[in-house]
Amino acid sequence: MCESHAYLLEGDEERLIMEDVISVREEGGKLLLSNIIGEESSLDAEVVAITLLDHRILLKPRA
Amino acid sequence: MCESHAYLLEGDEERLIMEDVISVREEGGKLLLSNIIGEESSLDAEVVAITLLDHRILLKPRA
Repeated sequence: MCESHAYLLEGDEERLIMEDVISVREEGGKLLLSNIIGEESSLDAEVVAITLLDHRILLKPRA
Repeated sequence: MCESHAYLLEGDEERLIMEDVISVREEGGKLLLSNIIGEESSLDAEVVAITLLDHRILLKPRA
């Protein structure tokens, strides 16, 4: 399976915001994350990096 | 393996721009895509959707 963990950049820190993410999409100007168990999280953020081999999605707050 | 194909939105069309992408990252204000065989592609675009179960990354040109 290809789920990834999503992290949000906060200054120099990366905070884990959702595990086992299966989809990310823009919706209503925000980013909607969904995980394997159907949980959803909406953030005012954008994708800065995707590293599929490490199962990592890195987001940053939208300016 | 979790490589994904990257598509660029062009109007209503989605154009395949790179197969077997393993990483996407912002670099120098652009988006740098790398694939499993080491090819790289730089685009002035942003990520609008990631669907890991379908192995799809959807990009759109940056406004």
